[in-house]
Amino acid sequence: MLVHQVFFWLKKPNEDLEAGMEGCRAIGQLKSADSYQVGVPAPTTKREVIEDSYHIALTVNFKSIEDHDAYQEDPIHLQFIAEHKDKWEKVRIYDFNLA
Amino acid sequence: MLVHQVFFWLKKPNEDLEAGMEGCRAIGQLKSADSYQVGVPAPTTKREVIEDSYHIALTVNFKSIEDHDAYQEDPIHLQFIAEHKDKWEKVRIYDFNLA
Repeated sequence: MLVHQVFFWLKKPNEDLEAGMEGCRAIGQLKSADSYQVGVPAPTTKREVIEDSYHIALTVNFKSIEDHDAYQEDPIHLQFIAEHKDKWEKVRIYDFNLA
Repeated sequence: MLVHQVFFWLKKPNEDLEAGMEGCRAIGQLKSADSYQVGVPAPTTKREVIEDSYHIALTVNFKSIEDHDAYQEDPIHLQFIAEHKDKWEKVRIYDFNLA
């Protein structure tokens, strides 16, 4: 399984959080994806190692890197990026294979 | 569900990767954890938004923040940190609640 873990920092979280999460749910349901989940920072104890300044966590799981690559090129995914990218202050992605 | 997503950067990945992953598997199986997975960076296409300089991804899922807090204080978890922390160049943790 390939895990595509995305974190979004929004410019205007108060205004754009819900729309951003809905967009994430839409692309998580693309046929190339095996499963997905959407989250928001949890109120765990703050420590130096904790990164909690992001606003949305999107996890999309793929059965193969080919499925991941198909997802990247899916017109609905590209439309999501086009529609939402101006709302993002920063995006950080960690792709990892389960081992 | 609370997702505890940890990324480890090792000082000496060639030497310490296997031991680090074994340690992650051990703490992922603590009774406070609902489930866990361990991964390594996937060879997806490099882009500006991709972070692939870490060596180990550990995901631990908890049914509640209380279970997460119990995990943090579990003697076996504390022993894992004591035994392995000198091998880490950096640790970054993202805790998020599924929404």
